Amino acid sequence: MKICVLPGDGIGPEIMAQALRVLDALRADGLPFETETAHLGGCAVDATGVPLPEETLKLAKAADAVLLGAVGGPQWDALPREQRPERGLLGIRKELNLFANLRPAILYPELANASSLKPELVAGLDIMIVRELTGDIYFGQPRGIEVRNGERVGYNTMIYSESEIRRIGKVAYEIARKRGGKLCSVDKMNVLECTQLWRDVMIEMAPDYPDVTLSHMLVDNAAMQLVKNPKQFDVVVTGNIFGDILSDEAAMLTGSIGMLPSASLDENNKGMYEPCHGSAPDIAGKGLANPLATILSVAMMLRYTFNQEAAAQRIETAVKSVLAQGYRTGDIYEAGTRKVGTIEMGDAVIAAL
Amino acid sequence: MKICVLPGDGIGPEIMAQALRVLDALRADGLPFETETAHLGGCAVDATGVPLPEETLKLAKAADAVLLGAVGGPQWDALPREQRPERGLLGIRKELNLFANLRPAILYPELANASSLKPELVAGLDIMIVRELTGDIYFGQPRGIEVRNGERVGYNTMIYSESEIRRIGKVAYEIARKRGGKLCSVDKMNVLECTQLWRDVMIEMAPDYPDVTLSHMLVDNAAMQLVKNPKQFDVVVTGNIFGDILSDEAAMLTGSIGMLPSASLDENNKGMYEPCHGSAPDIAGKGLANPLATILSVAMMLRYTFNQEAAAQRIETAVKSVLAQGYRTGDIYEAGTRKVGTIEMGDAVIAAL
Ligand SMILES: CC(C)[C@H](C(=O)O)[C@@H](O)C(=O)O
Ligand SMILES: CC(C)[C@H](C(=O)O)[C@@H](O)C(=O)O
Repeated sequence: MKICVLPGDGIGPEIMAQALRVLDALRADGLPFETETAHLGGCAVDATGVPLPEETLKLAKAADAVLLGAVGGPQWDALPREQRPERGLLGIRKELNLFANLRPAILYPELANASSLKPELVAGLDIMIVRELTGDIYFGQPRGIEVRNGERVGYNTMIYSESEIRRIGKVAYEIARKRGGKLCSVDKMNVLECTQLWRDVMIEMAPDYPDVTLSHMLVDNAAMQLVKNPKQFDVVVTGNIFGDILSDEAAMLTGSIGMLPSASLDENNKGMYEPCHGSAPDIAGKGLANPLATILSVAMMLRYTFNQEAAAQRIETAVKSVLAQGYRTGDIYEAGTRKVGTIEMGDAVIAAL
Repeated sequence: MKICVLPGDGIGPEIMAQALRVLDALRADGLPFETETAHLGGCAVDATGVPLPEETLKLAKAADAVLLGAVGGPQWDALPREQRPERGLLGIRKELNLFANLRPAILYPELANASSLKPELVAGLDIMIVRELTGDIYFGQPRGIEVRNGERVGYNTMIYSESEIRRIGKVAYEIARKRGGKLCSVDKMNVLECTQLWRDVMIEMAPDYPDVTLSHMLVDNAAMQLVKNPKQFDVVVTGNIFGDILSDEAAMLTGSIGMLPSASLDENNKGMYEPCHGSAPDIAGKGLANPLATILSVAMMLRYTFNQEAAAQRIETAVKSVLAQGYRTGDIYEAGTRKVGTIEMGDAVIAAL
């Protein structure tokens, strides 16, 4: 079990340190992990001049799974496009062919108050957003900014092929089958031909999954329904850009984005695992960051790449137990609970394991 | 003051009837309106075979303003793309050059409970979303579905020129100047060149509006921040597709989308005015629909096209007063208030005028 560890920028190294302690604990109990660490994002720019160095890509390709902290920060914002930290992220997704992004939006009962929504609307929330990650307007050609008729014009191309849609559709249908059996495909078929094809292909696949109920929703309506009644959703499948927007909206419904892991998988369940939250430069280096999303990303890695369901659940149970014991980092703190820093939270999880 | 009235489909005719009663009342008080009625959307398909008949377009072009109910319904969903009701809507926007879509998200104090969000997060909410409406991926070429390398491919083009961005930017800056002086421009500049140009142009315009504070937000973060802390926003400006998604999300934050009007303006403040909600086929013809968004659209028309601020406020005050009196249609009903139908709600507004 070879894992490529990419701590990244901002709070990345701090939260990763806690996730690695969890890995160590499991290793001591007999899971044979090997880890190698490399640079991605801003730290890679500083070290090598590019956000995704050759060396990092080589290690990531050789590994079975990649564990990522977070990338980005204001000090790299002024760099030319190709050198910005996000480019490293987009590059590694594309190079490793990580087309399936799984982003659970789960509200832990202990954190129900953290949501901006009324508790009865979000209690027990458990949505899985399946976002296509290597196609769409993120990677479509042609793209650019150029002068036409004496003025600048900026353009990008939204594009999906049947096989790209089918491949992500398969992942989504199979996840729906293992969960509540409900799959909602989100598109903008009333305006965009690209997403009309998306809907057509999702419908064509339905007969292969008689146990899954397929529904469709326009993206504007989905953005509304997530606010109005989020518990109507089980699994949501959508393209890269709509998935970017809706998965962040769904994550924020829980009010505790510091708790949410994500997985990005290729066709063989090789994957990159990372927290949904960003690199939080404002609190970096202060020992305040919440490591739980990264620790839960380790659980997702065990489940999806290494097929170690028991070990995955062991971590998830440990996290639930530290919440039940009242441990909270600042982002999820409320009166009556026990405020701790990044390392103490790591300690608590290790103890609960 | 020539107004082209397009009742449309579903609940459209019912809610429009109440809006026209309000117009009649104002006319009796000395505002010289002339109205002409035409078909748009599904009813136009039924009557003429196309969703935007020549005759409708001619009337709309000749008028100073267009008042629209709502278009669409399941009976037209299976029609070929070019005949679908939405095409009529997109066509009239484009033909009349209605590039500036103003979508207020206002929470009336009386309806604070209707929101899914905790009351303290939304009490007093008053956001103005300025959405570009005639460009972007909605109209970009090339577009289509075709076979490449033996499989179907669907594609669309996101595109903005400098002048298109500048024109909507001007509208947004000027609105921000008259409101709280805060303008947040939403883009996805870290991935899309098209929106990098968007951000560049917004920044270039800033020196002309020293009284407006410009900020920027990535669209995924905007979708989160709207849920987390919507009152941080004053005026939001964004492109057509992001605006479609975010304005619906923002509208739903209020929990009372049946209350929200919208305006779509051209360069000379000629405009089309319509409620934000759809044609609600499920309750059409039952006298249950909420006419207030359409009535408030009349107020927006008086304000933006006819420069009749006093008359606009008179309508808005009347609407607030019927809410204060406890009148509620089903969509905004709660225990302790008085449930009324479409016509009774119209009666109440007329009485309050
Ligand atoms: C950093 C950015 C390029 C990225 C994306 O848009 O995919 C991020 O928002 C995400 O969702 O992982
Ligand atoms: C009906 C549809 C074409 C339209 C749009 O996407 O613009 C609607 O969602 C809107 O926001 O007015």
